[in-house]
Amino acid sequence: MRKIKVDLGVRSYPIFIGAGILGSGELLVEQLSTRQVLIVTNKTIEPLYLSSMQSALADRNVKTCVLPDGESYKTLEVMQDIITALLEHRFSRDCCLIALGGGVVGDITGFAAACYQRGAQYIQVPTTLLAQVDSSVGGKTAVNHRLGKNMIGAFHQPAAVIADIKVLDTLPERQLSAGLAEVIKYGLIRDAEFFTWLEANIHKLKARDADALIYAVERSCLNKAAVVAADETEQGLRAILNYGHTFGHAIETGLDYQGWLHGEAVGLGMLMAAEFSRRLGWLTAESVGRIRALLEQAGLPVRLPQSLSTSMLRELMAVDKKSRQGNLFLVLLKAIGSSVVTGDFNNQYLLETIDSFQTSMPGSD
Amino acid sequence: MRKIKVDLGVRSYPIFIGAGILGSGELLVEQLSTRQVLIVTNKTIEPLYLSSMQSALADRNVKTCVLPDGESYKTLEVMQDIITALLEHRFSRDCCLIALGGGVVGDITGFAAACYQRGAQYIQVPTTLLAQVDSSVGGKTAVNHRLGKNMIGAFHQPAAVIADIKVLDTLPERQLSAGLAEVIKYGLIRDAEFFTWLEANIHKLKARDADALIYAVERSCLNKAAVVAADETEQGLRAILNYGHTFGHAIETGLDYQGWLHGEAVGLGMLMAAEFSRRLGWLTAESVGRIRALLEQAGLPVRLPQSLSTSMLRELMAVDKKSRQGNLFLVLLKAIGSSVVTGDFNNQYLLETIDSFQTSMPGSD
Repeated sequence: MRKIKVDLGVRSYPIFIGAGILGSGELLVEQLSTRQVLIVTNKTIEPLYLSSMQSALADRNVKTCVLPDGESYKTLEVMQDIITALLEHRFSRDCCLIALGGGVVGDITGFAAACYQRGAQYIQVPTTLLAQVDSSVGGKTAVNHRLGKNMIGAFHQPAAVIADIKVLDTLPERQLSAGLAEVIKYGLIRDAEFFTWLEANIHKLKARDADALIYAVERSCLNKAAVVAADETEQGLRAILNYGHTFGHAIETGLDYQGWLHGEAVGLGMLMAAEFSRRLGWLTAESVGRIRALLEQAGLPVRLPQSLSTSMLRELMAVDKKSRQGNLFLVLLKAIGSSVVTGDFNNQYLLETIDSFQTSMPGSD
Repeated sequence: MRKIKVDLGVRSYPIFIGAGILGSGELLVEQLSTRQVLIVTNKTIEPLYLSSMQSALADRNVKTCVLPDGESYKTLEVMQDIITALLEHRFSRDCCLIALGGGVVGDITGFAAACYQRGAQYIQVPTTLLAQVDSSVGGKTAVNHRLGKNMIGAFHQPAAVIADIKVLDTLPERQLSAGLAEVIKYGLIRDAEFFTWLEANIHKLKARDADALIYAVERSCLNKAAVVAADETEQGLRAILNYGHTFGHAIETGLDYQGWLHGEAVGLGMLMAAEFSRRLGWLTAESVGRIRALLEQAGLPVRLPQSLSTSMLRELMAVDKKSRQGNLFLVLLKAIGSSVVTGDFNNQYLLETIDSFQTSMPGSD
């Protein structure tokens, strides 16, 4: 088992990574300092892992809250349902919530914990690759608003993260690919060596080789932990973690969160940001080619859905939360492994970039 | 004009206290570092102060959000309405909300600011005495849940507090008395000298003497700022600020937030906590008599409403958020000016205390 520390002073916490570490529940029990425990999960995960977790925590006062599955339920109303469960069970501020699920469960449970009596503990037990390498680490919690994704939320660090690679065995193929998008992101924004490793090992990851997955999750979490430790509340540096996300969120919103997974939208968003970087003269065509090839090998889409128009995308990107005081800021690449956050670019190139993804591109599938 | 600093490192902020300091808007403009500004107020305050504030901020991008007036609107749904306004106006995370109103407006606006894109700025412009001396200072923000008051919230410090005594001229008599309850609280929990000053000056305060009010607000804020600086997120000491509130919240919930003002419930709650302290042998009968007399002179109720039964009160106090891991913790007095937080008491005395307030008490009106 690997252990990484997210270094945030009094808010520091461990990430545990391994195959089968949820197993007996021993590790979870060790991390759980409270008697009152609310497990929050969803209808898809419930039949797979809930009962074994309940058994492991038999000596605690354990209640459960099962949410419907899907991004469309990541709302303030569903968050309030979690709060209602906590109050109905008369849980005090000194309780602990366990987020057993993917990014949606993690984000909404973390936000409910942040708000419950102004701050209860929570532990992340991510069950998707995407949640293991990204959303479960770093304390960003939120729900969506009809006018934008993650618009209502809090920075609230978990007490621990337990990433069991074994749960990925039951993960659908597309979800695995979606998670790989965020893994590839770390290589692109700050770890060229990791990107090269991914090029050599993408087939092992797709085949769910346990050792390769453990390494990829660990290296992703190390990258994320370093960025979060340097800038917990996104005053500057942390914004690089949003690489591909401004394009990606616009795609998701334009599709009304239907059809595409978050990681798929982010994956394409990363390629669009790379292509935009190339048009600005910052990145070589060869690098863009390597990025596209790796995304395709990971099983990710490299073209926009037909239903999204240029004007709709631009409109949606303008309200994305990464825009400050009305200007659009983007994370762009200077090279593979080197990113910058900037609002200083030619909008014409941005338009051209978006357009280029709406028609068939040379070299794409 | 008086200026107090709430000392919280990078989250430090000033409280300005004076008569007529809102006036030209100059002070507010000085404190406002952003271009995008959302003024949140309610239907009662709107006709009194909104237009002059808008005029003062003519060079900014100012929008307004007018809420219905009343504690029953301090809900997650109304909080979401504020978020919707921010998104519809395309405000970025670098915007500023101004809470122009009493405790309800302050709490809900502060919470909306805390959640908007995980944290926007806000400035408190409290228009009631209670908000000036208590809720606007210290960064506690929240909305109510049907199962409990302030159950959903955040610690989120304002960028500044501007307490203009002049706005109290339009405050209804009962609201003034309700504010005095929180003023008296500071004397009781940690400032015996201030309590003595209040005994000598309560008539001036009731007559809205500006100098007396400025002094009372300043001394209250100094006390609150010292407690908050020592324990921002209520890990320990800060709980003394809840003196009278466990009883008070139970009264409010039992009355479904109808009929009694928050400060009235807290005022009676403080007397009940004092009487309980006496029954435990910690406080003299003479001290309880002084407390009752001051509360009465402040125009506050000293007996429970007939409609509340002992069993209902006990039930409600058990779910109050100050109870930890199932035990009820209360703030009690060792003397006027000296408080303790404790769960170590005889429940029988608590029952007797509650009962004693349901029937006519010797010495009460």
